[in-house]
Formats: sequence, C-alpha cells, structure tokens
Amino acid sequence: MGKIKDIKFIMKEYQYEKPFHIANSISAGSKNLEVQVFLENGVVGYGEAAPSYRVNGERVETFLSLQPFVKEQLVGIDIRNYRRIFDIMDKLRCASSVKAAVQFAALDAFSEEIGAQVYQLLGGAKDEIETDKTIGIDSVENMAKEAELLFKSGFKSIKIKVGEELKKDIRVMEAIHEVSKGAKYIVDANTGYTPKEAITFAREIYARGIDINVYEQPVQAQNIEGLKLVRYNSPFPVAADESARTRYDVLRLIKEDAVDFVNIKLMKSGISDALAIVEMANTAKIQLMIGCMSESSVGINQSVQFALGTGAFAFHDLDSHLMLLEDKFRGKFLQDGPKIKAK
Amino acid sequence: MGKIKDIKFIMKEYQYEKPFHIANSISAGSKNLEVQVFLENGVVGYGEAAPSYRVNGERVETFLSLQPFVKEQLVGIDIRNYRRIFDIMDKLRCASSVKAAVQFAALDAFSEEIGAQVYQLLGGAKDEIETDKTIGIDSVENMAKEAELLFKSGFKSIKIKVGEELKKDIRVMEAIHEVSKGAKYIVDANTGYTPKEAITFAREIYARGIDINVYEQPVQAQNIEGLKLVRYNSPFPVAADESARTRYDVLRLIKEDAVDFVNIKLMKSGISDALAIVEMANTAKIQLMIGCMSESSVGINQSVQFALGTGAFAFHDLDSHLMLLEDKFRGKFLQDGPKIKAK
Repeated sequence: MGKIKDIKFIMKEYQYEKPFHIANSISAGSKNLEVQVFLENGVVGYGEAAPSYRVNGERVETFLSLQPFVKEQLVGIDIRNYRRIFDIMDKLRCASSVKAAVQFAALDAFSEEIGAQVYQLLGGAKDEIETDKTIGIDSVENMAKEAELLFKSGFKSIKIKVGEELKKDIRVMEAIHEVSKGAKYIVDANTGYTPKEAITFAREIYARGIDINVYEQPVQAQNIEGLKLVRYNSPFPVAADESARTRYDVLRLIKEDAVDFVNIKLMKSGISDALAIVEMANTAKIQLMIGCMSESSVGINQSVQFALGTGAFAFHDLDSHLMLLEDKFRGKFLQDGPKIKAK
Repeated sequence: MGKIKDIKFIMKEYQYEKPFHIANSISAGSKNLEVQVFLENGVVGYGEAAPSYRVNGERVETFLSLQPFVKEQLVGIDIRNYRRIFDIMDKLRCASSVKAAVQFAALDAFSEEIGAQVYQLLGGAKDEIETDKTIGIDSVENMAKEAELLFKSGFKSIKIKVGEELKKDIRVMEAIHEVSKGAKYIVDANTGYTPKEAITFAREIYARGIDINVYEQPVQAQNIEGLKLVRYNSPFPVAADESARTRYDVLRLIKEDAVDFVNIKLMKSGISDALAIVEMANTAKIQLMIGCMSESSVGINQSVQFALGTGAFAFHDLDSHLMLLEDKFRGKFLQDGPKIKAK
C-alpha cells in the first residue's frame, strides 16, 4: 500500500558562490527546507522549499513548526490520491514554498511507486530544455565580463538584473550587448522601476538596437495598471513575476490584458497553481517562462520535471543550483552547461 | 518500450431503449467510434467517440477516413510522452469526439503500462460519484411517471429536458416536483428558449416554490449576452453546455461573467481542453458538472475516470450507457444504480 506513513522536515543551509544582488536585496545564501514523504511500502519522495520573504511574505523560521500540522493532515492518504494532498496544501497560504515542496514530494513518491518519472506523469512533453544563467547587480565592467564568460561557455540566454539605477542599467545593457551579440536577454527589474522609468529604460534600449526577449516585472507587484502601462508602451514583451503568485493573480492579469508573459515559479504557486496557470496562460495565449528562488538541485529538480512534463515554457531560468555551493548534485536529471536533459 | 505501434478505429452502433427526445432533436440510437491504441509492448488502450453533429458539427461518416492520418501522426510516440499526443490531437478540430477518444485511449494505455488507473493518474480526488438520470421530452404524464420511478429507485438528481413548449414545460416541472419532492433538478433547455422565455420559465418555476439546481443552456449557443441576461434575471444557477465547447469558449464566458456553471463533456473538449476548463473554472469560482453525449460504457468510462480523478464536479450526468442497449458492460468502474465507484 502506498499510504503516507510519515513526513519529515529538515532544514538545510546553502551559501552562494558569491553574494547575489538584485534590486534592493542582497543574499549570501539560503536556508531551505527539505521535505521527505515516507510511504508504508518503503518509498520515499523528496521535495524542497526555498522560501522568499520578499516575494511570498513567508518566514523560514516558522517552517519546522508546521511539520506536525502537515503530517497530521496527510498521514494515511494513499499517494495515488495525490490531488487530495494538493487540495490540503493549497490551504497553507502562509508558506507557499512548503506547499510546493510537499506537493512535489507526493508526486515524487507516486512516481517512484509506479516506476514512471514525474515529468512523465505530467505528460512528458519534452526530453530536453535549456536554461539561462543570471547576472546579479554589480559594476558595469563585472556584469559585462560575466556575460562574456557565460556566452562563450554556451549560455545562449542571459538573465540580467536591473532596477536600481536607470542610467547605469542602460550602460550595463550596452556593455553586455557588446560582448554577447546573438544572445537572448531576459531583463529583470524585480519591481525596481516606476512605470515611467520602466518605459524610459525600454525605449532607450530599443533605440540602441538591442532586443530584450522578456522584460520582467519592471514595476511594483501590486501595480497592475502600471504593468499594463509598461506593456503598451514598451517594444518588448512584459512579464509578471512578483505580480503573479497564485492562479487568482494570473486570472486577473488575463482579464486586465496586463502582460505578455508570466514567470511561473513553483515556490510561489506550488504544483497545483502552477498547473492551473499553465492551462490559463495557454488558453489566453500568454507566454510562459519558469524561474526559481534559491533552490538546490533537489528543488530545481521540481521545476525541471515540471518544465519537461508540461513543455509549457519559452524560457527556463533554472540556475540557482548552479550558483549555490552544494556537496552533491541530487537532481533526477542530467546537466550539461545550459542543457538539461531527462534521465 | 511503450511506443505506439498501431491505432485502430472501429465503428459501433447502439440503439436507445426508447427514442431520446430533447429540444428539436430525436435520436433512436448512436453510431460511435471505438479507438484502440496498441503499444509495442502489447498494452492496448481503449477510447470511444460519441459524435454530435448538433453540438460539435462533426460527421460520424468521416471518422474511419481519419484513421490513416491519426495513425501516421502518432505511431512511434512513447506513451509516457502523452502530452505530445494531446497536442497533436488538439489540432483535429473537425472531430472533437475523436480527439477525446484518442487522448483517452493514450491515457488508458499509459495507465495499463504502469499499473495505475487513469483516475489515479489524474489525481484520484474521489473514490465514488453519483450520477443523475435524464428524462427526455415526452407527455407531462410520462415524464412525471419516469421521474417517480427514478426517484424511488434511488436517483436523487434528475435531469429534465425542456425547451420546446414553455407552458407545457412549466406543467412538466409541477408534475415532476409533485412525485419527487427532495430530488435535485438539472433542467436542460438545449438552446430551445429565447432569453425572455428562459427568464419567464425560471420565474414561474420559482414562484411555484420549486428549486432548480442547474439551469442548463437556456438559450442559443452563440448568444453569450443572452446567457448572461438569463443568469442575472433568474434565481437559479445558469450553466453553459452548447456554449462551452473549448477552453477558449470558457475563457470568454469567464471574462464576460456569463454563467454560474459549465457542463464539461469530453466529447466537446477532449481530455486536454477539459483539464484546462477544470483549472480555469476552479480559479474563477465557476461550478462544474460533467455530462455525456451518447457514449456506451466504454465512453462513459472516460468521463468517470476524469470525474473521479479531478474531483471537480458538483453534478454528474453520466447516464447514456444506462439508456443504450449494450451486449456487455465494459467500464473500468462499478455501477450500482446512481452510484459509480472506482474499481
């Protein structure tokens, strides 16, 4: 019988290779929660929560104290009834990354029990995807140097963090473009601009003949009107990230015609809302990218399985495990530079 | 290896126990298409298309001629990549019931290969559901007699066909209510009323102290404004059926706030659009029912697995196999009067 017998929550701490700087936030490392789901038949499923206070409002120091509550709700449920686990975890709105980890660990256990990988359970749409790599905020010179290295080492998509200083950000784009012509750029302001600054940035970049493939979250998360203003006054596709946490957020974005792209992150939405967002965006012809917080290879595995299974994403920004120091690679996938392949 | 080796299309003909009369249409039986998907490893998956010219515009006499095209597209695909099969079949818009049958047969084969039932692959949300049974258009006396029999034999939800004669329809509701107090009523006009007639019917029924749980498709399929008018001028929840074939139809209904309920039928939407509609409706807080065309137990099995797996439905109208004459029951579920249980 594949009934849930136990749920373990284990805190893990990871350091970044170098401090990661985005608009108005610098991180040296990440405290993540590993979730293990044990079935009566001996199968174990793994998940990971990489919390975000900035985006989700969740506090990592509360996570261990949630374990008895989660265990009490889930013990005894057959893993083949995974939607019941999804529904229960949907209510844990104080900790969306924990919801994601538990929901994925359930799928992982189901997958192990029946001998099909999670990406196959989700449809097996793709065998391979390619990730970008992210350049945090730094001096113009350092950011350009990193872009050159990345592009030369095979990363065809580069994600660039901006949003703190408009004029410097324009110089960053010029310098990066100079050393990586042909690359695709995902430019992420992490809510740092006002709508007027965001439009100015886009027009200045366009005037320099530089193309941006995705212009992520230029303005503040709750400013949907502002997002829409940027969308209609920028030549580049505008994406919601911080503005698109739940399925309800995305329905509102669709109703208001506010964006061209949505950045799905399992840490914001869990598996359940992420699946709903895929279906809604596909219907509304909004494009999708998938991103991450600060997951290790255990957590990135979740997004890799989701992306391969649904095949829903034009861009993959699944690189946090490449930036964190980790003893051992634990993903159930193969990584070769930017290439990520199903095992 | 679970690769698709062959696809067979087989025509089957079923007769109704008695001619089935709905607004402006009477059927004596149904010509359905059975779809068999053969894998290299010997596994076989089964699906069924029960076409509808009235609702889908599809013609059953074209189905066999589609077999070489479908086979050519699908042979060689591993069943664990079922989303690729879904995507290919999504393009076959001339034959949505065939899309449904092929998509389900793929899931059925995947399910057999890994030893988990289709409803478990879809999440195993429920172990049991209850179906209504439908009373076709007939004399007031005959309809009331049938309602009495159904209610006494345990059917707590009764679906009633109306939409041809407003005044008689009101008498039908009075007579049925008299003999089945406590039953839930799904009243289906199959596009038969004008918006004004639809509102009159609802108000007259309400004035008689009779409750209707779902008021299905009162007006013409393309008349979304009319549907919305009825919704806002009727005390009963209004459902779209003929107006809600694809995921795109449902997105429009959501954007226009046109309905309280959507009736999902796999024969209109296939598995792929049905899954999208479930996610969209759950997000928009629109309720769902699941219905059927004229499926045998092979086709009803598809909807049963979908309903048990997603757990998404407030009402189940899965009764066509109870109305068709069939040599042998072939559903992978247990039927006990209105009760339908997972095997």
